[in-house]
Amino acid sequence: MQLGVIGLGRMGRIVVDRVLDAGHDVVAFDLSAEATAAAAEAGAEAADSVADLYERLDGDARIWLMVPAGDAVDATLDDLEPHLTSDDVVVDGGNSYFEDSVRRAEATDAAYLDCGTSGGPAGAELGFSLMVGGPEWAYEELTPVFDAVATGPAGHDRMGAAGSGHYVKMVHNGVEYALMQAYGEGFELLHRGRYDLDLEAVARTWNNGAVIRSWLLELCEEAFREEGNDLGDVADRIEGGSTGTWTVQEALEQEVPVPLIYQALSERFDSREERFGRRLASRLRYGFGRHDVPRREE
Amino acid sequence: MQLGVIGLGRMGRIVVDRVLDAGHDVVAFDLSAEATAAAAEAGAEAADSVADLYERLDGDARIWLMVPAGDAVDATLDDLEPHLTSDDVVVDGGNSYFEDSVRRAEATDAAYLDCGTSGGPAGAELGFSLMVGGPEWAYEELTPVFDAVATGPAGHDRMGAAGSGHYVKMVHNGVEYALMQAYGEGFELLHRGRYDLDLEAVARTWNNGAVIRSWLLELCEEAFREEGNDLGDVADRIEGGSTGTWTVQEALEQEVPVPLIYQALSERFDSREERFGRRLASRLRYGFGRHDVPRREE
Amino acid sequence: MQLGVIGLGRMGRIVVDRVLDAGHDVVAFDLSAEATAAAAEAGAEAADSVADLYERLDGDARIWLMVPAGDAVDATLDDLEPHLTSDDVVVDGGNSYFEDSVRRAEATDAAYLDCGTSGGPAGAELGFSLMVGGPEWAYEELTPVFDAVATGPAGHDRMGAAGSGHYVKMVHNGVEYALMQAYGEGFELLHRGRYDLDLEAVARTWNNGAVIRSWLLELCEEAFREEGNDLGDVADRIEGGSTGTWTVQEALEQEVPVPLIYQALSERFDSREERFGRRLASRLRYGFGRHDVPRREE
Amino acid sequence: MQLGVIGLGRMGRIVVDRVLDAGHDVVAFDLSAEATAAAAEAGAEAADSVADLYERLDGDARIWLMVPAGDAVDATLDDLEPHLTSDDVVVDGGNSYFEDSVRRAEATDAAYLDCGTSGGPAGAELGFSLMVGGPEWAYEELTPVFDAVATGPAGHDRMGAAGSGHYVKMVHNGVEYALMQAYGEGFELLHRGRYDLDLEAVARTWNNGAVIRSWLLELCEEAFREEGNDLGDVADRIEGGSTGTWTVQEALEQEVPVPLIYQALSERFDSREERFGRRLASRLRYGFGRHDVPRREE
Repeated sequence: MQLGVIGLGRMGRIVVDRVLDAGHDVVAFDLSAEATAAAAEAGAEAADSVADLYERLDGDARIWLMVPAGDAVDATLDDLEPHLTSDDVVVDGGNSYFEDSVRRAEATDAAYLDCGTSGGPAGAELGFSLMVGGPEWAYEELTPVFDAVATGPAGHDRMGAAGSGHYVKMVHNGVEYALMQAYGEGFELLHRGRYDLDLEAVARTWNNGAVIRSWLLELCEEAFREEGNDLGDVADRIEGGSTGTWTVQEALEQEVPVPLIYQALSERFDSREERFGRRLASRLRYGFGRHDVPRREE
Repeated sequence: MQLGVIGLGRMGRIVVDRVLDAGHDVVAFDLSAEATAAAAEAGAEAADSVADLYERLDGDARIWLMVPAGDAVDATLDDLEPHLTSDDVVVDGGNSYFEDSVRRAEATDAAYLDCGTSGGPAGAELGFSLMVGGPEWAYEELTPVFDAVATGPAGHDRMGAAGSGHYVKMVHNGVEYALMQAYGEGFELLHRGRYDLDLEAVARTWNNGAVIRSWLLELCEEAFREEGNDLGDVADRIEGGSTGTWTVQEALEQEVPVPLIYQALSERFDSREERFGRRLASRLRYGFGRHDVPRREE
Repeated sequence: MQLGVIGLGRMGRIVVDRVLDAGHDVVAFDLSAEATAAAAEAGAEAADSVADLYERLDGDARIWLMVPAGDAVDATLDDLEPHLTSDDVVVDGGNSYFEDSVRRAEATDAAYLDCGTSGGPAGAELGFSLMVGGPEWAYEELTPVFDAVATGPAGHDRMGAAGSGHYVKMVHNGVEYALMQAYGEGFELLHRGRYDLDLEAVARTWNNGAVIRSWLLELCEEAFREEGNDLGDVADRIEGGSTGTWTVQEALEQEVPVPLIYQALSERFDSREERFGRRLASRLRYGFGRHDVPRREE
Repeated sequence: MQLGVIGLGRMGRIVVDRVLDAGHDVVAFDLSAEATAAAAEAGAEAADSVADLYERLDGDARIWLMVPAGDAVDATLDDLEPHLTSDDVVVDGGNSYFEDSVRRAEATDAAYLDCGTSGGPAGAELGFSLMVGGPEWAYEELTPVFDAVATGPAGHDRMGAAGSGHYVKMVHNGVEYALMQAYGEGFELLHRGRYDLDLEAVARTWNNGAVIRSWLLELCEEAFREEGNDLGDVADRIEGGSTGTWTVQEALEQEVPVPLIYQALSERFDSREERFGRRLASRLRYGFGRHDVPRREE
């Protein structure tokens, strides 16, 4: 089988390598000539434009996009659109918003698969979890590629109609926020609690047989091993938040309470800004009780 | 009527003044001779010890304690105990933990009234809200004093048996935490939101007829007037938390969810400490996604 | 001064009455002829269509819309638009979404004031709190009307540019949700706690001098008086939620954490639906611990 | 090596079987003669009382208690105490409160190890995760037994001084509550959201390579397989809550915010009781806005 891959960043490059390893052919393109050359060295056929990539594909095109969510996806699709036919299949493997994927699926002539991809850089060796939305025939057609990119046949599935792959990935990320914060609360309590504990040893013991064992807990173990028991100079500041925000917005629309996911998202906002509301609460304590008001230091 | 008042800090002194203003007699004592002298100047009879205060009271003793919650209450009661008879009435007007009040009521020979007091320094003019627990006869007996110290007859009531006054006050404070934080959230959103708003004007407009009008909202108005629209140098740090902690502990025991009160209490803890759990979550984002980890600056 | 009022439901009718009481003239119209007739009996001049109402106004038109938020506002504006000039002023006193108000202000030839109105039916006697957005001259022009409809001059203010009135009202309602739930938590703890309490007496005592006194707390007092200490047959189900949802959505966009408002909104959703997530959690307890799983009864 | 095991319920019996399988000797006792006989059939030596068990142990006693947390532990220790010497080692493998373990460790003449045990019935095959507190020499001494009962050497560790094993297990359970609820929120949103999804397939896809893969997520997969995509007749009611309550109480004492764990615990309380506070909030909506109040049906 032959696959075109557009976007050769960390994740796109893993797709290229896993598909090549599985014995398939890859035509690769990235806006960075360097990244394209590196993929060529790894065994892919280099293309020097989106149009060139399309031309180099034999028969019906099967193309995997791994470009940043947002405008880059639309720009790439604009370049592809003049060439695409209804027998072609385009996979968006990035973190696109599901409503964008629905819109794009409707707009293109090709069959469009939105593919939520989870697993991060560790997926290079293990393979990813792939949540796919879109036409069934296109999903079937791409199965060899999904087998190669995922952990295997169990690591990918068709969720449903257009958008459902990115929808399930969005919810996955919302849950991810909450899980991270849940472990964070546990380790913070252990860190500030009554015993002087080796948190790496705690995580390792839990990872071997405890109910809460998980891959994220293995990453906690790794974090304590690499950063130290007090996490060294890691700051109290969590970046990111877009997929969590989407999850909460969708939950609001569906009237589904997601207080843990909301709280985990709020912690990110909280970690990045002074809180005006708390400053007001502090001042109110003076208002009704003449309690001292802590002031900013010069 | 004649009342002994022990403890002449800001709150105790307001009790003295309001009882005097209502035409009653006061015998006053404080560990600070200065505070005692000041009360004497205001019209009270000065005592130079707890024992002396007790002796100066005619007939059955009616004594109001306004000393800091905790050991100071027990120490004062220890001094009083040798003198007390079952016809005497002792009022604890401080912020004692309700189980301490139950214990003290059982331990003393006198009738013991636990009296939750709310209203802060503003009570000097308006009078307080008094939530009283303990024997009905003692509550009736003290009615003239309660009328004077409270905003009037509607400002005090007997809640129930021993401890109930401080119990209701504890819950009052839990609600107070949540109300402060709720207003804080609203004003924070207005402060950081789409319009450049005069928050004092917002608070004033709300205080005149809006559903959320309240005394705390009047204090918000005052805070913006006195500190400025951006709250000047008020720090993002809220002190205190004991009565809120008691409220949550009791709610846990009763299996009553109080998520808003809990959250408001957590904001206080949060404002006072770097969060280890968030630092871990930030590091985990590197673990699974190779996202940059913000580091503390030197 | 002369005011046209379109929409004569409970709230619109209060506007008519208060403006008449203040000595102004009112031309009134409602889709229900009955409602229009009732306003006429109260002293207003009846109009039998939007166009007719516009014609009956002398000089530059000053028109107050009090129709349900959403399509009804647009429909009314469509009827008005052919007549409006840049010297006319239209006030939307309903609960419109602020972005709709911005859009409408841009679309109309008239000066457009978005006016958040708070106070409910009680405003009939007390007057409302009015948060107004839009051009300053139009706000000044309508001052006599705002004085009459509000609690007085302190009960209304211009918040800022178009949309700011409904924006501030939206946040007001978010805070309102949280305040209601905060009092709810306190009274639930008292209801299920250690003492057998008269909750109306608690509310009354708090309303007289306590820090948490407020109009909503007066309504709690009224609720216990009218429904009984256990709230009789009031169900555990809270309707509504749109303005709270808007508030949380806007807070997400501004990255402002509003956990209390979110929680209060979630309680509404929660009260209306069985929770699938809790059913899953219950089943997981069997999965890892062989705990009995409660099953629905037939 | 020879181990006495007291308490032969599901968990105690797994301990017996795994220790026997590892080639050690077991003397077993349970208040139920039947349970003791079953253990004897499996290869253990039966004892007919605590005293008899102690006598049957050669040399220094090594005894594993697997009885319900609380009074049963104290009762068993009372029976053992007359026989114990400072060379004996007692392990409490149950879910005891850590402060009870500290107290018991101080009270007994023997070396006392508190051992948090996680993994549930699945541990029969895989082995458990064991978090051990107490004297180092005793932990070293019992290593062969811990190797057998745990998943292997990586599945047990000494956390620290007396109580630390049960302390870490308590926090483990708090995190467990939050993780369960986090997955619950995600699947509830998928269940009530825009797509008609096969939740077992979602869970399986996630378990193969996704960031949020975990043992609890495998149990979700199993739950959907066994109960159906809508969880059949599983009720919206979560039992239990004691270890979560302990975790929150300890976090309050340490002033560590644990909002996700608190929320997950609250969901349990919430699922078991009608909410008075929500009934009040519903009634307040009538108070200020004349909104209809839902009433209980007859």
